Order: sequence, then structure tokens, then C-alpha cells
Amino acid sequence: MKRYLILAASAAIFAALPLSAQEKPVFPAPGEIVAAAKAEEWVAIVPSDLLVMELAPDAKGNPRRVVIQLMPAPFSEGWVGNIRKLAAAKWWDGTSINRVQDNYVVQWGDATEKKALPEGLAVVPESGYTIAAEKWDNPGFQGARAASRSGPDEFDDGLIDEPYAKKAEHWEGWSFGSDFKNVWPTHCYGMVGVGRNLSPDTGTGAELYTVIGHAPRHLDRNIALVGRVIEGIEHLSSLPRGSGALGFYEKEEERVPILSVRLGNEAKELPAFEYLSTESASFAAYAEARANRRDPFFNVPAGGADICNIPVPVRRKPVK
Amino acid sequence: MKRYLILAASAAIFAALPLSAQEKPVFPAPGEIVAAAKAEEWVAIVPSDLLVMELAPDAKGNPRRVVIQLMPAPFSEGWVGNIRKLAAAKWWDGTSINRVQDNYVVQWGDATEKKALPEGLAVVPESGYTIAAEKWDNPGFQGARAASRSGPDEFDDGLIDEPYAKKAEHWEGWSFGSDFKNVWPTHCYGMVGVGRNLSPDTGTGAELYTVIGHAPRHLDRNIALVGRVIEGIEHLSSLPRGSGALGFYEKEEERVPILSVRLGNEAKELPAFEYLSTESASFAAYAEARANRRDPFFNVPAGGADICNIPVPVRRKPVK
Repeated sequence: MKRYLILAASAAIFAALPLSAQEKPVFPAPGEIVAAAKAEEWVAIVPSDLLVMELAPDAKGNPRRVVIQLMPAPFSEGWVGNIRKLAAAKWWDGTSINRVQDNYVVQWGDATEKKALPEGLAVVPESGYTIAAEKWDNPGFQGARAASRSGPDEFDDGLIDEPYAKKAEHWEGWSFGSDFKNVWPTHCYGMVGVGRNLSPDTGTGAELYTVIGHAPRHLDRNIALVGRVIEGIEHLSSLPRGSGALGFYEKEEERVPILSVRLGNEAKELPAFEYLSTESASFAAYAEARANRRDPFFNVPAGGADICNIPVPVRRKPVK
Repeated sequence: MKRYLILAASAAIFAALPLSAQEKPVFPAPGEIVAAAKAEEWVAIVPSDLLVMELAPDAKGNPRRVVIQLMPAPFSEGWVGNIRKLAAAKWWDGTSINRVQDNYVVQWGDATEKKALPEGLAVVPESGYTIAAEKWDNPGFQGARAASRSGPDEFDDGLIDEPYAKKAEHWEGWSFGSDFKNVWPTHCYGMVGVGRNLSPDTGTGAELYTVIGHAPRHLDRNIALVGRVIEGIEHLSSLPRGSGALGFYEKEEERVPILSVRLGNEAKELPAFEYLSTESASFAAYAEARANRRDPFFNVPAGGADICNIPVPVRRKPVK
């Protein structure tokens, strides 16, 4: 808790911000910082790294599309590879959303648990939940960390206090925890993970869930995270909660049919998506503003934030 | 991040747990610890400290009741007093739920913004967002803190790392942040707060919201928290998201009518509720288990938790 450092860092960031006509410091809201980011600070998401899930239309006949961005290698790549094969085999077509537990997860897959899986799926060991830190601490990341948040010691970057890891940080568009030996993705709102049975079963990737409540970070390193919902999460988070144990739907008619799941490069009418580079100056200013709100609504800047309260901005690429 | 202390504390707690037939340590899940708590570890919630909101029935005709527990004095007592007056005046009857923003809040009140408020509501200053620590650090609390989590220093109790305060802790059934000068309630899932306009307006209590996503802790000390939903939050969290700015419903017919809001002592057929004493041995074991999952599903205990990932257990009092 080195709050004085946060204030010092803040002053440096604000000095670079434009001043108003009255020469008073301008304190934009995080969303305003994102909106003002330069075009070159946004990174295109390759369509083949997207998973597009079409649910049956809602009661009013409106289509329900959920777009998921898959995690980049080397994270969870065994499961992500399986998911690509399952999508190519159209395996999820005709399956359903079977579980909605309030403040926790929405889960989908084969409710019958009898549908044959495609051949060639990898069996991924528990060691795949994390990757060795040396694979992660590449020069590019180190440079971004030094530039954006030089902390007093390796355990504290002065912005994010972290109960679930020795360090948590954003990198290349995602957030990760680390104990300096290993690195792992974090269970934040909208993250997509691989359902499994008891350890050491790690799941195939056929049974998936997304977080719809407060970040269940205790699942980090205990379940594989394979992506995040970047559009349409409201089609999942606003579903009726299941009345069975763990929020499972008890009646077949409660389940929400999944019409299809395709990789983005095989989906129809998919817009282009992009995320704000977590190594950009605008992201650093955005993260600082999330941790220290000083826009007009606020009286007291918090002085810090948890990693899941600094979500990476993702948007449809603006049409010129 | 003094993880070794957490492990030391854990060993002490586990030593007190029953051993299985094989004399191996038993690692119950947090829910199992709560289920095994003694009857005397539960604290009755007085009906007059409850607010009962009846929404219009859902599309299938099912009733929708939301039960809110009001914050105890001295926290937010100016606003809580106003809320008691508004309920007594039946002010919310005929108002509606007007805003549902994904991963953020559901908000209700008078959509017309023209309904006259009852006389005698207090105008509460911003100083009411916190209370002086000396009012909070009573002997009972100090004793419970010493018994359950003796930390190495005043900034770290060894269990909860806290980005938004110098310390966060449970006390008498609620969670609070503190900078040792002042104490304030925390914006966790299900907490209920007072909508307001720009500072220094602090709102009356007529416009309320509840958190339905990842804890927006940056709102701590910036908005008054007056209670928490203890039953029926799914009637709010599963509502369709609003398509307007900030998640407001754009059409009048999208709003969900509020039939009535009454204090619990004036509500019909209200069951008895109770919470697990945060000063009890079972709560300490539960909190430790939330921070260090070792039940069979888990491979890696996190070694810590954020305060909002240790929600206070609340239940209907079991009928004998």
C-alpha cells in the first residue's frame, strides 16, 4: 500500500494531459480517455481468433449472438486447439445453455453428456493452467511495464493490489496473475473457461462457461481460461437463473438452444473488432483513471484498483 | 503479500477441524462450513431492518419479491432514515425499475423525476459517506479481529489484500474499508446504494440501485450504501439490459413496475432471516476457506481473497 507513489505517478500522467481554458487540470473519465485514444493504439483482433455463438432468437424473435475472443498462445493452447476442432466439427450446433448461476457463471455444452466428441482432441494436463514466467516476461512486456508503472519493488507496481497472486498485470490485451515462476490468466467478468469434473480431469473444451458476477479469482490456476466474451454477454447474463443445484436448469424447456458456433473467419456478417493496446499510453492513462477517479462525479479517488476492475477496452472497429 | 502467515493461520484452523476415518485432514468447502455452523453462530435480522420490494409478476405470472437488509447505524443513517420515511409514505408504490446496465447496476425510482417527495427528508452531507474510526473500533470488534486474524502489522491482516483501502474487514455482518481515520461500507455484489447527481448532491434515498456485476469499489466513499439484497436479486440481475446510455430503458413499456415497497415489519408473509456472525469461529473458517480452497475440486489454494469474494452468508432461518 504505497499510496504516495500512486499520487506521484498520477501527477506525471496529468501533467501530460491538456489543460482547459482556465488552465485547470482536466480529469477525463476512463471512457473519455478510451474514446480519445489514437487509431494506432487499437489492435485488430484476427477473425480466426473469434468464436461466434448464435443462440435461438429471444421471445420477441430478436437474434442473440455472442462473440468470444480466444486466448492467445501460449496460454491454454491445448484447450483452445480443441475448441477450434469442436467449432470446425460444428459440434456445439444443437447443444444448449444449461446452467445460469447468479453472481457466478453461465455454462453451455451437451446437456445429455452423451454426444460423441470429434476425434483428435488433446488431453491437456493441469500443468497447462499456467505457463512458465520466462515464456511471458519477454522484452516487449518488460519495456511496457517499466514505462507505464515503475513500482518500488517487484511485488508492488503501485497501482494494483492483488490478493490472488504476487503480481497481476495487463499484457497484450489480457490480464494475468503471476508468482514470478508461473503466469496465468485471471477469472474476470466475461472470461470464458473450460468446465470440468474433479481434478485431475481438466476438461476438453466442449463444456464452457463465462463469468457473470464478481470475479471468482479462486478459480485461477484451477480451471483453464480460453477467452472472453467481447460482445453479446447480455444474452447470457440476463438469462433466467436455474433453480437446480449450482444453477442448472431443471427442465429441458428452460435450456437455451445453441444454433451454431463457428470460428470468426467462418461466421457471416461479422464486424471487425479491436482492443486498446495494453502497452499504449492511452491504456496506461485509462488504467490510472480507473484506479483514481477524478472526473466530476467523484469526491474521493480510490488510490488503487483490482485487476478485474480495469477491463481491457474492446470495440467494433469504427467505420470510416 | 505475506503468504507464509496465511499458511500458518490455516494450519491452526485446520488442526481444529474433525479428522476423517483415515486420519487425514478434512477440507470442507466454504458452503459446508456454513452449513455446519452452530445455531447460536447465526444472528437474527430484525424485520424492521428489512425493505421488501414487490415487483409486478413476471411474464409467466410468478411473483417477484426482493428483500433488502438496511445498513446498521451509524453507517449511512441519514439516508437510511429517509428510506424508512419513503417506505412509510408508500412513496415507491407505482414507481419502476428504470435502468439495467450489464456488469454494473440495476436502478429504480421515479422515472418521471416529478413525483413529490414526502416532507421531512434529511439532506445528508458528503461527510456521511464515512464514519470516524473511533466510532467503529469498539472493543467487541477489536477482540474479534485479534482472535480471527492477527496480522503482522496494522496494514495487513494476512488474508485480504485490499486495493481500495488501507484495510478491509468484516464486522457485525457487513464488510468495510478503512484508512484508520474513517470507515466505510464496500460496493460488493448485491449492495444497495443511493443514486445521485453530481457532487456535492448526495441523493435522498428515493433513487436506489444494486450492484449486479464485478464490485465497483471505486464508488466507495463516493456514494452512500444503505443495504444489500439478501433474497430475490435474480429478479433484478436477470432483467433485460437497457439499450439507452448507462443502461437506462428507452421505452416506458420496458420499465418494470414496482407494486410496493414496505419495511419488513409491515410486509406480508415474510420469513425470518439471519446472517452468520462475522465474529464467529465458523465465519473465520469460512473466510479462510474462501481464500484457500482445498476442497476436492481445487488444485491450488489462492492464498488470499478480496473482501467482496467473501460474502457474508445470509439465509432464511431454518424451520424446526
